[in-house]
Amino acid sequence: MNALAIIEKKRDGLALSAQEIEDFIFAYVREEIPDYQMAAFLMAVYLQGMNRQETVALTETLVKSGQILDFSALGTVVDKHSTGGVGDKTTLVLLPLVAAAGVKIAKMSGRGLGHTGGTIDKLSCIPGFRTDLSQAEFQRQVREIGVAITSQTPKLAPADGKLYSLRDVTATVESIPLIASSVMSKKIASGAQAIVLDVKTGSGAFMPEFERARELALIMTAIGNSLGRKTVALITNMDQPLGFAVGNQLEVVEALETLKGRGPADLEELCLALGAEMLLLAGKETDLTTAKNSLKKLLVEGRALEYFRRFVAAQGGDPAVTDDYSLLGQPRHRRKLTAKTSGFVARLDARKVGQAAVLLGAGRQQKGESIDLTAGIYVQKKTGDAVAAGECVAEMFCSNLEKIEAAAEILAQAFVITAEKPEIPPLILDRIL
Amino acid sequence: MNALAIIEKKRDGLALSAQEIEDFIFAYVREEIPDYQMAAFLMAVYLQGMNRQETVALTETLVKSGQILDFSALGTVVDKHSTGGVGDKTTLVLLPLVAAAGVKIAKMSGRGLGHTGGTIDKLSCIPGFRTDLSQAEFQRQVREIGVAITSQTPKLAPADGKLYSLRDVTATVESIPLIASSVMSKKIASGAQAIVLDVKTGSGAFMPEFERARELALIMTAIGNSLGRKTVALITNMDQPLGFAVGNQLEVVEALETLKGRGPADLEELCLALGAEMLLLAGKETDLTTAKNSLKKLLVEGRALEYFRRFVAAQGGDPAVTDDYSLLGQPRHRRKLTAKTSGFVARLDARKVGQAAVLLGAGRQQKGESIDLTAGIYVQKKTGDAVAAGECVAEMFCSNLEKIEAAAEILAQAFVITAEKPEIPPLILDRIL
Repeated sequence: MNALAIIEKKRDGLALSAQEIEDFIFAYVREEIPDYQMAAFLMAVYLQGMNRQETVALTETLVKSGQILDFSALGTVVDKHSTGGVGDKTTLVLLPLVAAAGVKIAKMSGRGLGHTGGTIDKLSCIPGFRTDLSQAEFQRQVREIGVAITSQTPKLAPADGKLYSLRDVTATVESIPLIASSVMSKKIASGAQAIVLDVKTGSGAFMPEFERARELALIMTAIGNSLGRKTVALITNMDQPLGFAVGNQLEVVEALETLKGRGPADLEELCLALGAEMLLLAGKETDLTTAKNSLKKLLVEGRALEYFRRFVAAQGGDPAVTDDYSLLGQPRHRRKLTAKTSGFVARLDARKVGQAAVLLGAGRQQKGESIDLTAGIYVQKKTGDAVAAGECVAEMFCSNLEKIEAAAEILAQAFVITAEKPEIPPLILDRIL
Repeated sequence: MNALAIIEKKRDGLALSAQEIEDFIFAYVREEIPDYQMAAFLMAVYLQGMNRQETVALTETLVKSGQILDFSALGTVVDKHSTGGVGDKTTLVLLPLVAAAGVKIAKMSGRGLGHTGGTIDKLSCIPGFRTDLSQAEFQRQVREIGVAITSQTPKLAPADGKLYSLRDVTATVESIPLIASSVMSKKIASGAQAIVLDVKTGSGAFMPEFERARELALIMTAIGNSLGRKTVALITNMDQPLGFAVGNQLEVVEALETLKGRGPADLEELCLALGAEMLLLAGKETDLTTAKNSLKKLLVEGRALEYFRRFVAAQGGDPAVTDDYSLLGQPRHRRKLTAKTSGFVARLDARKVGQAAVLLGAGRQQKGESIDLTAGIYVQKKTGDAVAAGECVAEMFCSNLEKIEAAAEILAQAFVITAEKPEIPPLILDRIL
């Protein structure tokens, strides 16, 4: 393998063969290619792109760099992945909901970074809940309870971890083929046979432009389907937060309310849509409408909530949190934000809400920072809602007042109030098979 | 300084400020920026380019990274640089010729690499000739004799050396702003107040396409003039070798013949053209025709040759080489290449001639390789010449027969013979002020 020739080929915008990609990545993992050559290669990929075949080959190489879990003996095990948003607690609802429908679900998840949250942080609010299952525990729980979640392990797709660390310091993170192969390599290595992707677009998404999000969804579904995983993607709106709650403890409460059949309309709509896709992929249902109806029934009848308790208990958590939210922790401080003018909320900028939540302590700017699980924002008015001057539009919660002024300032900027009632955009923008 | 923000800015095709460029390069020199970040940056520059202001700022930064020689007390000292070609021995003629015209000339030069030769290698044929003058010796000789040449020192523009080593292993060499800033930083640091550039185009040049060569010439002259050096560039044809001789000892002989007024027409034409530009920049003459005529006179009257002897003696070499070419060394083997068909030489591919010469031992593929100074090719037919089947078109010389078959094969490919007499392209294609 000639490393320089491979860098030149990509630099000149030519497509690499699967063999060239595998040789190059594996040589890097073996430290036969230095960081500076990989950095030049990554920048060439960033600027010249990769076609579908190359991206699939890269993903397959990343998968092959580590362990691959195998759930094939259990029937179709499904997984779900969101590209990240603000107030996105769908996983908390989907895990027990889909399991209650009789579909096995195995999920590896990460912690929150930047303005978006992570499921592992949210679950940490539940006293005793373990997010560090061993592989054996993880596999056993999927088999026995039908649902399990654990932190991402560096044993799956380790080449991706090594590449990501370098991308992070060379301004090559925001590349569609690199993002798609990174996400999909971990999904594929973690063993699910079917994958539902929630690709976010809008201000609170990592990929705000719809066309870029669609491109990402297309390549991710192509990777999954090429590598033997049934994969579907929904492209969903993240211009404003999902639901009303942003911040770990607040979001767990809102997820529990949704499991009780009384959650915010948009959150429930998205959970039913994603859940229905999972049921179809698992072969439990054959049409989306029937699937959504049966999932809705599981919410209303409390069977999803019952699965939540069982799942929490299996992972060492206290299932009493479903009845006593105070067990999730309580913020010491709260402050209301009021509207300066009357009118309608024309825009509620999800990214600004996320940034304000981080300032309150709900998230982290750098990996490894500790966070305040009780911190967050509860939005009371969303896009299209009427508001009167002086009325509360959002409430901030935290246990440390240090940055509350800065947070209030950014949160105030998140709300744009106009005299005319705005159009409300649909939540689910596209479906990619 | 935020290194990542600077990489991102260049990645996104935005122009960097002079301060950003200086901060980034100096931090790299101080090893505060790792190779992998510089590699990503260089690939971004390769693919996104740099505008004129950025390229000037980069050059100035490279100059400031090391020592800067100062000849300002000696009047206008001139320098000449060629982007590299096959059979290009103009410097050997120009140094004594321009000095004989009363213009001081100070030149730092490199060794040959790949299919092109280097002046330092050529001068090494002269017994005793020293190409490693100290800075003090170099400056004294320019003052006293009016002409000196020495190997490039790593003390001038050291940041360029560090960057070049990284470009060489990251496929980022062939970038016009990076080439231009690299060349010009060394020229500017080496102290000449006026610079004449010979930018080669055609098959034997590093930049074969005319438009790319012109772009390089434009940016190099802009850099020189922006940084206080009077700079002129000629764009010259390197589709076929310059003169007839390719290889170190052969080229020295041809240069001496030219200094005796009986050199090849194309070589003499180019030497007079470049020399005339140097006289104009130094203020010795005011129009090119008069300047060429006075230089031609210096050749015919033997005054340039006399200066060559003085210059060789000053650098420790044996001036008797001008009368006894056998002192330059003799190849042990020679072999003729004959034409297979009759007709006209429609094309004589300089790159292939250069590659054949390297196989004979006249050049090196890798830095630091030793070479055979007696090896080379003497072309007997050039583009437009009539040739009969069986007639000698070129002769190969070497002291080691090991690769002569391979060389003969490539050399044969260099000649394209057709029935019709071709157009002969002009030697000097453009002049950039």
